[in-house]
Order: sequence, then C-alpha cells, then structure tokens
Amino acid sequence: MYYVGIDLGGTKTAAGLVNEDGIIICKETKPTRKGGHYTEIAEDMAELASSLIRHNGVKIEQVRYIGIGCPGTSDCEKGTVLYSSTFGFIGAPLAAEMQKHIDLPVFLDNDANCAALAESISGAAAGAESSVTITLGTGIGGGIIIGGKIYRGFNCAGGELGHMKVALEGDECTCGRKGCWETFASATALIRLTKKGALANPESIINKLLEGDIGKIDGRTAFDAARRGDETGKRIVCEYMGYLSDGLINIINILMPEVVVIGGGISNQGEYLLEPLRKLVGAGTYGGNNIPQTEIRLARLGNDAGIIGASMLGKKK
Amino acid sequence: MYYVGIDLGGTKTAAGLVNEDGIIICKETKPTRKGGHYTEIAEDMAELASSLIRHNGVKIEQVRYIGIGCPGTSDCEKGTVLYSSTFGFIGAPLAAEMQKHIDLPVFLDNDANCAALAESISGAAAGAESSVTITLGTGIGGGIIIGGKIYRGFNCAGGELGHMKVALEGDECTCGRKGCWETFASATALIRLTKKGALANPESIINKLLEGDIGKIDGRTAFDAARRGDETGKRIVCEYMGYLSDGLINIINILMPEVVVIGGGISNQGEYLLEPLRKLVGAGTYGGNNIPQTEIRLARLGNDAGIIGASMLGKKK
Repeated sequence: MYYVGIDLGGTKTAAGLVNEDGIIICKETKPTRKGGHYTEIAEDMAELASSLIRHNGVKIEQVRYIGIGCPGTSDCEKGTVLYSSTFGFIGAPLAAEMQKHIDLPVFLDNDANCAALAESISGAAAGAESSVTITLGTGIGGGIIIGGKIYRGFNCAGGELGHMKVALEGDECTCGRKGCWETFASATALIRLTKKGALANPESIINKLLEGDIGKIDGRTAFDAARRGDETGKRIVCEYMGYLSDGLINIINILMPEVVVIGGGISNQGEYLLEPLRKLVGAGTYGGNNIPQTEIRLARLGNDAGIIGASMLGKKK
Repeated sequence: MYYVGIDLGGTKTAAGLVNEDGIIICKETKPTRKGGHYTEIAEDMAELASSLIRHNGVKIEQVRYIGIGCPGTSDCEKGTVLYSSTFGFIGAPLAAEMQKHIDLPVFLDNDANCAALAESISGAAAGAESSVTITLGTGIGGGIIIGGKIYRGFNCAGGELGHMKVALEGDECTCGRKGCWETFASATALIRLTKKGALANPESIINKLLEGDIGKIDGRTAFDAARRGDETGKRIVCEYMGYLSDGLINIINILMPEVVVIGGGISNQGEYLLEPLRKLVGAGTYGGNNIPQTEIRLARLGNDAGIIGASMLGKKK
C-alpha cells in the first residue's frame, strides 16, 4: 500500500507518494495559488495527488489515504483549518473539499507537527518516547511528540513554540505580541542581526563575502564569517546562540523531552552549531547535571520531513 | 481503605489521612528538621504518618500506601529525590529510607505535580482531560496533567514552569538564570514591585495601609490599595498582571490545556484577578478567538492540594 503526503506551503505545494516504510517514491511540486480560496487550494491539492498516483502507475485502491500538513491550527478530527495566518483561512474544511475531487480519506494537521512526527518515527528522534522538533526558518515551527504521538492540546493548537515570549520588549511578531522567540531565533532574526552587524562594522569579512550587496545575507553568512575568524561574525553567532538556547532551555524545563531536534537551514551548520548550543543549554537547564539531560540532535529528514510526516498522519490517529 | 499524603515543605511537613473519596479525615503538621539529612527527614515523615494512623484508630492494614510531595526533581519509579535545592538533596532515596521505619509502599513526586493532580481530580480542573496548575508563592510551582495523569517528561523533571525565561534580563533567579517568570510573577516578585512602588510614591495609600512599616507588605497589599482606587496600587497590579499573563500565554501557546488553574495566596483575589487576566490572556494567545480558548480558573483545594495529590500518587501510577 501507498500514502500521499502533502506539504502545503505559502509559496509551493509539495506532494510525495510514500511507501509502507515511510520512503518517498516520487515527489511532485507546484506553486500554491496566491490568495486562493480554500476550495481552489483543495482542488489544486487533489489534482497534484491524482497526478502523482497516475504518473507512478499506482491504482487508487493501492493508496490508503492522503495526509496534509498545513501552517496554522487545524481541527484534526474534522479536517478543517481553524485558523491560518499564512492563507487567511478561518474555518476552511480542506479535507471535505478535497474529497469532492478525489475518493480517498484525507487527514490534516499542522505542518510543524508533521515534521516532528516524521523525525520521531524515522528521523533524528527515532526510538525516543518523547521529542520536540524545532524548525528554524522564516519563523520557528514546533512540534511536540509524547508517547510516539503528536501532542496537540485540547483544541489542536498546541506546540506554538515560536510564539513563546522570551523578552519583555522586542520587534512586533506576526502574532501581535512583542518578544516572541521567533523574532530572536528564527533564520529571519539571524539575517536581521547579520545585516545590523555588517552595517555597523564595515571592516567585517561579512561585507567582503557579500560583495557590497547586503541583500545577499542569508542564514549562513554570519556562520561563514565566524568560521573564518571574523570578530563581527563570531559576535553575531554568539548572540544568536544565546537567543536560541533561551527558548530551548524554556522548552526543556517545561517538557523535558528525551530528544530535541533542530531543523531548518541553520541546522546545516552541524556540530559548529550544536557543540556550543549543548553547553549553553546544559548550563541553563533546571537541575543541570544532577538529572538526566535532554539530547539535542540535528534533523535528518530535511525538507522531506513535512511530506513524510503528513503521510503518517492516518497511522497515528 | 485509607491513604497518607505528605506535603514535605522547607519549613513544615504536613501529613493527612485521606479516604477513598480524596477527603482529608485528619491532618498533622510538624516543623521540618532544618538542614536535616535525608535519613532524618525520612524518619520524621515515617513518625508523622504512624502518629496520624495511630491517633485515628486506623490499622496499618487499612492504609494502602504513603504518598509524598517534595520540592525538586524526583525519580518517581525509584522514589528517590534526584535534586532539591530546598533541601540540598542530590540523590536521596527517601522512599526506601522511610520503609525502614514503616511497612507501607511509598510513592514520591514533585510537590507542584501533586497539587496539579489534586486539582485535576477533585478540584478546579475536575473533568478536564488536560490542565496546568500554577501556584504563585515564594516561586512559581507548576504541574502539567495530560490525559488525567501527571506529565513528568522523560526524567521526571518536567513542569518547571517558573523557570521559563520571559525577559532577556532581570534579577538572578535561584536557578542561576536571569529573567525567569517566577522573578516577575511570583508572590515574592509582587511584594518587591509593591515595595518599590510604595517607596517611590509617598502619597500612595499603600504607605498608610502599612503604618510606616514597609516590612508589612505582602501579596495582598497592592490589590488592597488598587481596590480603594489608589493610582500606585492600580499601576502595580496592572504591571504584575502583565507579567503573569506573559507566562500564562506562553504556557497556553505551547500546551493548550483545557484548563489553567491559578493557586497560591494571590488567587484569593478572585474575580478581581481573574477578569482582567482572562482578557489579557485571550488577547495574546495565538489564534485568539478563532480557536477554542483555554479556561482560566481559581484553585479550589488551597493548601490541602499537596496532601490530597500526594495521597493519589499510587492510584495514578
């Protein structure tokens, strides 16, 4: 049997045909219709799924269900998006709408929850009874796994780890509050820090790396400079690590998961990121070395985590 | 059958004989031996339990077990305190030590977890599938209940909600970090705010209420002044509510429990506390009114929550 996993993003929609072992057999992607009504988005996803099934010579009877990971809060029982700022959805019955176009069961969940489920089953946290997966991107996505299952809270809206306030003041967040963790520790926040550092320190290697175009700064820039011994780069990375560890320590003090998984582009820094982060987190966690410590690991499934996790939604119901 | 619940505190130890309905039949209290070795503390608790059983004419065969709530982190399986800053315990096998003196099974857990369990079974969160109980005292105690059971994390150290950083800077916390929620929103923090406000505003009613003795300030003072229309009192209460809501919103965004229970002396302010708090929390929670909201309620079991919860530990294993 096969499963279709769909990672519904603000700019593109990626779908994968996944086998019983959680391996993606084939992937298809198309742009997400900008400003589309939920009926249109649902129709597009149904077409993408049909195309994927057809192109792989698989019969629809061989597909068990479709799983969708969508930004925002969904009622997972009903398959309805309750609220998604990315799409402007309020109460969008995506699952029912898709079923008008394709005759398969449809499961729906938050995209970060899907990534966390995938990492917990076949990724970095495989074998752990509890884990939290953090994705450092435009914002910070978070998914909590307890007892091998997604923890959603009573209204399916839990796990909004990026919207944990870690500072009394700060830039306004998309959620309306100030001081949210994602305004300090997302890739976007690191880019902002790097720009500020580059402008204030004209002698920094960062400015050479950019060849004068500050718009080229991305989540790697400060790390690249720091690795070359640039003081500004090192200071930026150090400040960023502090913010990143602040939120991680909070999450650990609250949930004490066996494993925390770090994903998103910044996790490509590997041990250069992880080694100092482990020290900061170990030193700040309540109880310190007197109690067993949460392990921090890098995500393993990369951008496929969303598709793989979505394809597992029906199994873990 | 009966149960003995013990609330082991830094200054006093309270024990209760509890019936099948979770009702305390009789309570005995004695001072906790200051700086005592764990063997002495265990012996004292065993004596207190024996005395309670004897004085009530109950046979030891009629008592199912003893449950203990202790500040700090415990290995609940082994009945060992892994770390408690209150007592300076690191690896103290309290349960085994007690059983040298009394022939009953002994269960051990964190004191705030016990309070949360009690409120979730026979208190303010009775009937809720998930709840978080916050106790505003010297620090902030927190207990998380998921699926009717205490959520402890993989190492039994979860639920340290007071040690969630909500500010980049601030007074140093007992845990060594700066900016912990309990340094802003505990009763101790409110007292500090009130003192500062009273000193800076000699015209404030607060100074009259204290009759010149600033040492008389407690968690009620600012509320008392605010209720009488005092501007300084209102400002202090407003600032404090802001800090309290900051942490509550974080907890809700992460866990989305059905109910949050507020306990500790400050919860005696009742609706005067709760009404503005509900508004602040409702406005700041991710998803706002588009999704079902967590209910905020006042604790019902008061100081007995620790004893009652401890007496339930064995049932919920």
